[in-house]
Amino acid sequence: MPQFMDVHHGMQGITADQLMEAHRADLAIEHDEGVHFERAWADPESGTVYCLSAAPSADAVQRIHERTGHPADEIHPVPVSI
Amino acid sequence: MPQFMDVHHGMQGITADQLMEAHRADLAIEHDEGVHFERAWADPESGTVYCLSAAPSADAVQRIHERTGHPADEIHPVPVSI
Repeated sequence: MPQFMDVHHGMQGITADQLMEAHRADLAIEHDEGVHFERAWADPESGTVYCLSAAPSADAVQRIHERTGHPADEIHPVPVSI
Repeated sequence: MPQFMDVHHGMQGITADQLMEAHRADLAIEHDEGVHFERAWADPESGTVYCLSAAPSADAVQRIHERTGHPADEIHPVPVSI
């Protein structure tokens, strides 16, 4: 399945608990769209969050993130990876 | 060791071979700065590359990327991750 890296801005001060809560909310409904959120990394100082997922499309990723209240600002397909 | 996500722009058309070549160049000298480059993901269409590393500092990451000819445009500490 294709992989995607999505980016959220404006998340200044995000804590480990908040990232986990957001991730769990995504995991709870991700199957509705055939998405799996694999990893997430946050920079609380700049307010940037990166999420790595496997999904049928960027739109599917965004539909999950929208339903859980944190739409992504950018979603990049990453067909090349190491 | 702290983790960092660095971002490179302007890499339109990057191939799997080119990403691997760049990654191997980084790996060959990363120990000079106590850095380890763990993963990398590329979106050839937008020309964006994300690199995940463990390193003593963002400056250490950048010194390796500069020596191998691909300085990062952004380097974010990511102290919070899943």
